[in-house]
Amino acid sequence: MASGWFYVTCLVLGSLGSMCVLFTVYWMQYWRGGFAWDGSISMFNWHPVLMVTGMVVLYGAASLVYRLPQSWVGPKLPWKSLHAGLHLLAFIFTVVGLVAVFRFHSHGNIAHLYSLHSWLGITTVILFASQWALGFAIFLLPWASLWVRSLLKPIHVFFGAAILALSIASVISGINEKLIFSLNNATKPYSSLPSEAVFANSTGLLVLAFGLLVLYVLLASSWKRPEPGILTDRQLLLQLGPGSRPFPVTYVPVTVRQSYEPW
Amino acid sequence: MASGWFYVTCLVLGSLGSMCVLFTVYWMQYWRGGFAWDGSISMFNWHPVLMVTGMVVLYGAASLVYRLPQSWVGPKLPWKSLHAGLHLLAFIFTVVGLVAVFRFHSHGNIAHLYSLHSWLGITTVILFASQWALGFAIFLLPWASLWVRSLLKPIHVFFGAAILALSIASVISGINEKLIFSLNNATKPYSSLPSEAVFANSTGLLVLAFGLLVLYVLLASSWKRPEPGILTDRQLLLQLGPGSRPFPVTYVPVTVRQSYEPW
Repeated sequence: MASGWFYVTCLVLGSLGSMCVLFTVYWMQYWRGGFAWDGSISMFNWHPVLMVTGMVVLYGAASLVYRLPQSWVGPKLPWKSLHAGLHLLAFIFTVVGLVAVFRFHSHGNIAHLYSLHSWLGITTVILFASQWALGFAIFLLPWASLWVRSLLKPIHVFFGAAILALSIASVISGINEKLIFSLNNATKPYSSLPSEAVFANSTGLLVLAFGLLVLYVLLASSWKRPEPGILTDRQLLLQLGPGSRPFPVTYVPVTVRQSYEPW
Repeated sequence: MASGWFYVTCLVLGSLGSMCVLFTVYWMQYWRGGFAWDGSISMFNWHPVLMVTGMVVLYGAASLVYRLPQSWVGPKLPWKSLHAGLHLLAFIFTVVGLVAVFRFHSHGNIAHLYSLHSWLGITTVILFASQWALGFAIFLLPWASLWVRSLLKPIHVFFGAAILALSIASVISGINEKLIFSLNNATKPYSSLPSEAVFANSTGLLVLAFGLLVLYVLLASSWKRPEPGILTDRQLLLQLGPGSRPFPVTYVPVTVRQSYEPW
């Protein structure tokens, strides 16, 4: 039952994520002149598409690897490798997305990194790179001690979620900025909400919905790799159902488990 | 020791929060003509100040009430009331901040709610209002059953954190938008990074730092109201220190505690 709901949520996430990418592509293709790799404004158009695909959708998918019921049992190494591999793919999309905007700026003699959107965006990418490198060194390579891993795990999980939140903030401020710039001297300005503005604003809200759902599954759902012997209040209450009274004290075997297998 | 670190973090949070408010006031006063309540652009200037104060700083402080060591023991009702009261104060600041921008728009015949910043902002405020009303009805009023409370608690905690993240995204996109508008025809445009732009961008990063630290204390720190009989891996490892080996199975009394006292 719980697993069934998980797959329904995956379906919703898959649909929302695909819509985020498709909407961004459609916005750039239909209203902003499509794509090229020549330093022109059409090269810039790769920037929103690659950042939404890399820093939001692929990043979100990579974050959720350990929520897959299949990952709850057996050796953890294949799932760690998938987690790191998907994040690396997300990072490659992100870097190509940065190349697109930097090359467009250089080609058009536009200043780099002046807006708050760019300051936030570059901070997010630096945090992402640091998180990936530290995650690789501590959790994937075999040399870090269990103590170090267990101590760093909540920090890794926190920054994983925080970087996604910062990516969403970057995307929102980026879409806002792009619409202000593009519709500045348009016959139908941003303030008159032409169809492009409604479409791109909605794309922003889609990114928000996708990101919030990923963060919910990541931080607040019951689909975490179970800790043997330890039930949270919520897991217990979900099992007992309404009408049940929390009982005061019971003796149960508690396994203080190793959070990390050596591999 | 842990409590000492908590108060150091509170000091850092207090300083960061004060700086967020003071920097926003200084930006509006020094570069944007100061404050008034007359429908002019000086009335708009209350908007960033009140939103940063209400939706970020006061909201952040209100969220952290249950992390105060004093709140860990004894009856929960006074702390619940403080939590709800501070959030209500944050909400009042927010509403006055919205009045400032809506009155400025009406007075200057500027369209309401067209930018993605405004769509995100108004979504965040609606979520905040719903969260407060639901929190009041379920957790402060005495009629909801323990089962309902325990089931809704993680959702309440998640949306509490999510609304703060959305507030930060709103503030970032708002500062970005304001700078693009204000410096559009300036002799020193935004892209040349005049001192106002550096100052306001830095204010945005300060808001980000404050928000991230609040979210860290809220979601990932060890300063949560302890659950008797249940130690997380991390709390245990912090107590045992480096070199300790997680032991396999031990029998300890586990209290499945009532998360909520009736009052």
